Amino acid sequence: MLRARRADGAPVGPADVDPHATPGVEAGKDDGVAALAARAGRLAELQELLYAQSTRTPASGRAPVPSLLLVVQAMDTAGKGGIMRHVVGQMDPQGVQVAAFKAPTPDELRHDFLWRVRPHLPGPGEVAVFDRSHYEDVLIGRVRQLADAAEIERRYGAIRAFEAELAASGTQVVKVMLHISKDEQRERLAERLDRPDKHWKFSPGDIDERALWDEYMEAYRVALYRTDATDAPWFIVPADRKWYARLAVQELLIETLEGLHLRWPEADFDVAEQRARLAAS
Amino acid sequence: MLRARRADGAPVGPADVDPHATPGVEAGKDDGVAALAARAGRLAELQELLYAQSTRTPASGRAPVPSLLLVVQAMDTAGKGGIMRHVVGQMDPQGVQVAAFKAPTPDELRHDFLWRVRPHLPGPGEVAVFDRSHYEDVLIGRVRQLADAAEIERRYGAIRAFEAELAASGTQVVKVMLHISKDEQRERLAERLDRPDKHWKFSPGDIDERALWDEYMEAYRVALYRTDATDAPWFIVPADRKWYARLAVQELLIETLEGLHLRWPEADFDVAEQRARLAAS
Repeated sequence: MLRARRADGAPVGPADVDPHATPGVEAGKDDGVAALAARAGRLAELQELLYAQSTRTPASGRAPVPSLLLVVQAMDTAGKGGIMRHVVGQMDPQGVQVAAFKAPTPDELRHDFLWRVRPHLPGPGEVAVFDRSHYEDVLIGRVRQLADAAEIERRYGAIRAFEAELAASGTQVVKVMLHISKDEQRERLAERLDRPDKHWKFSPGDIDERALWDEYMEAYRVALYRTDATDAPWFIVPADRKWYARLAVQELLIETLEGLHLRWPEADFDVAEQRARLAAS
Repeated sequence: MLRARRADGAPVGPADVDPHATPGVEAGKDDGVAALAARAGRLAELQELLYAQSTRTPASGRAPVPSLLLVVQAMDTAGKGGIMRHVVGQMDPQGVQVAAFKAPTPDELRHDFLWRVRPHLPGPGEVAVFDRSHYEDVLIGRVRQLADAAEIERRYGAIRAFEAELAASGTQVVKVMLHISKDEQRERLAERLDRPDKHWKFSPGDIDERALWDEYMEAYRVALYRTDATDAPWFIVPADRKWYARLAVQELLIETLEGLHLRWPEADFDVAEQRARLAAS
């Protein structure tokens, strides 16, 4: 897992990251899968702690209740679905909402590109996960020239302002690019074609987009460069090895939640008094 | 797990069901927990199969894409949260939305009681889970006389018509009452008071509602009697043993999804042609 900006401040793009690497992890697949299971409890505990924050109304003038937004972007077959099932699925579905953004509808196209994502932002104490996101509008939007250059240019700034506003209002914004190699994508698309139970995941359009691989990598490079920020960082996660990508995103969520230093809300009632009432009931 | 109507057509209410029983399961806790884990894959597979149905646009004039609505109602501490984490959480969060209904807001109170639940109904291929639901309006609504008797009476019919409409438009409606004993609730509330990390789950109002236990059981009896139907059945799930309740709800979901007899959508493209395109890409 590599931050899209190095410690020295220089930007990092997809070309700087080997999709087959496993940075920070010495173990192989078996140990990685075991680690993912072993850390599930910790992730679930931290998410419950976040969720618990929403149950007490903050005093007037206090900081807003924190929340978490995880943005997941990737080329087709890079493993978004696996992240949802195996990492996001480790958290309590009560406090987690996944929003998948597909091609915009005519009604969505009539509005600014950020309009459709706002209703899916996390509420107090919640985790929201975007499966694709407003970044599509500077990725496929740029590659397919769905908007002119000036509008694409405007969007980078609009995204930066939007995410800064989220961060300032208590939402931890974490953005992940699952980074696979073009060869790995061929193998995964071939598997979808080979298995009738996977046909529904395939669309001929996937190969059209694949033909624009280099253009997409350039669009990712620019998008990451323009929108990476301390309060809304981008991470490029090598994803040729599914177990590694899952472990990396799990760890990223754990670190982000640990960084909030949350505590269980204190009782706003007299515990002894309620014990006595309960015993008498 | 008992259907709220016996095979002979006679209604079954909470008073007919022992909360400590484990109907249909001979195993004890260890085997029950193991069975819950062992069946997780089957539930996930069936939910993916449901989700896959939404990817192909049905031909004009064809039946709607199926979906599933699970309604979970219970007295406090009966284990709704555990059902969400341990059963609902076994499904892919991409295709599952949990909606928790708390005390209605002033805006919600201005509308008919069904207004606020409609936006949370499942889309095509989706699973929606209601953590509490429109039934609150005939449960606490009746016990606390939040509406007059004529309005409560109207609501039973409105619910029946609403759920019949859902069923007719392709939504499988399954309703579960997690049924605990009053003694078991005392123990669980006491645990929440004993553990500082559980204080946030407790509210003094919980004991106020507990004092109305018999009135609630009567409200459940009437609600189940009036709204149980073949196309939207109620199940009373003994819930004093958490492992049993989870296993029963898991099995109910599995049986409901199996009853749809779904198949993987067939490819709407030429597989050989796409293989050739992929190989050349």
